[in-house]
Amino acid sequence: MKENPNNVVWHEPSVTVADRKQLYDYRSCAIWFTGLPSAGKSTLANALSRKLHSCGIMSYVLDGDNIRHGLNKDLGSSPEDRKENIRRIGEVAALFVDAGLIAMTAFISPYREDRRTARAIVKQGEFIEVYVKCQLDVCEQRDPKGMYKKARAGQIKEFTGVSAVYEEPEKPEIVLETDKLSVEDCVNRLLDYLVSNEYIKKSRMAREMANAVL
Amino acid sequence: MKENPNNVVWHEPSVTVADRKQLYDYRSCAIWFTGLPSAGKSTLANALSRKLHSCGIMSYVLDGDNIRHGLNKDLGSSPEDRKENIRRIGEVAALFVDAGLIAMTAFISPYREDRRTARAIVKQGEFIEVYVKCQLDVCEQRDPKGMYKKARAGQIKEFTGVSAVYEEPEKPEIVLETDKLSVEDCVNRLLDYLVSNEYIKKSRMAREMANAVL
Repeated sequence: MKENPNNVVWHEPSVTVADRKQLYDYRSCAIWFTGLPSAGKSTLANALSRKLHSCGIMSYVLDGDNIRHGLNKDLGSSPEDRKENIRRIGEVAALFVDAGLIAMTAFISPYREDRRTARAIVKQGEFIEVYVKCQLDVCEQRDPKGMYKKARAGQIKEFTGVSAVYEEPEKPEIVLETDKLSVEDCVNRLLDYLVSNEYIKKSRMAREMANAVL
Repeated sequence: MKENPNNVVWHEPSVTVADRKQLYDYRSCAIWFTGLPSAGKSTLANALSRKLHSCGIMSYVLDGDNIRHGLNKDLGSSPEDRKENIRRIGEVAALFVDAGLIAMTAFISPYREDRRTARAIVKQGEFIEVYVKCQLDVCEQRDPKGMYKKARAGQIKEFTGVSAVYEEPEKPEIVLETDKLSVEDCVNRLLDYLVSNEYIKKSRMAREMANAVL
């Protein structure tokens, strides 16, 4: 019998997290990278994202490039805006987790309170705080965008590490000392964590699918 | 030779849209459903999302359930907040498209200007406006949440269709008359559009992968 559109029940169940899990065979989560400017947050997030991609695992990196000039372009540097910046990033990360991706965020996020807010937004057990730890002088030596130089010259006010505080994480899930470890070592530690906490399967890592078309 | 972490170039290329395309074999886009309350926006978005999921295509529906109480919980009903609501949804949809998903939005979005803003945020050729068209009396008859009833009783102010205007799309990519077509017919039209405009491959639709583990 032809469905009568006027009487149809206008509700359809959504694709659930369980449905997605069945299809993707990995568990989505938010990996929150925090650390000083030039500590290596974006580098590590992007390196991990490439690795996951090569294994057929969907991920996405939220960082200054895609957030500052888009979603959060209306926000300035006031304390309220700073909080709102991190809150929105947390909310978007939670949406990506709900959508079934491994979401990564690469923001200095220097304040414990803001990181707590982000953690509270994402579901329990799906938030992984990664402290990208690096000595200030090493960060300053890297300084790929010349931001430390500008901060030392007084051209940037309230620059984390120079003229604004960075509150170290108290209980991060992972600490990566980027002044001691290579990028590859850091990525391997992240992968080990994801495997041992059953976000991704070891078998998945073994059969890399760089050129596979699903 | 062991990489020296202090001298490493702290930059890694991101996973690009081209990389994702190679892996997923479909083209991401934002499908923007607009229409009167109870016209069927969420129903169609969720039905399409389920269908795509069964074909192994990643999609995500942004709607009141996951946006209003999260990302946009700070927004009220003033004209500025209404604009900001749609702007943020457009920005998040663009992030999902960048991440390689078929993003769907199910919001009344009654004003042409707001929809133009959303269209401008998403890359050209990746925004599909779907006018979910339905006669007011049919919407009002459906009224699953009793919102029309409340609006008629004066308990909701500025309710689209009753006490606030809905500006019909002038050049939507797709029009679906939900008072004439069944949900299934509407979903098939959407799929036809996605195939004929090369977002998804016909072969992909043929081999449904409902229970496949990739």
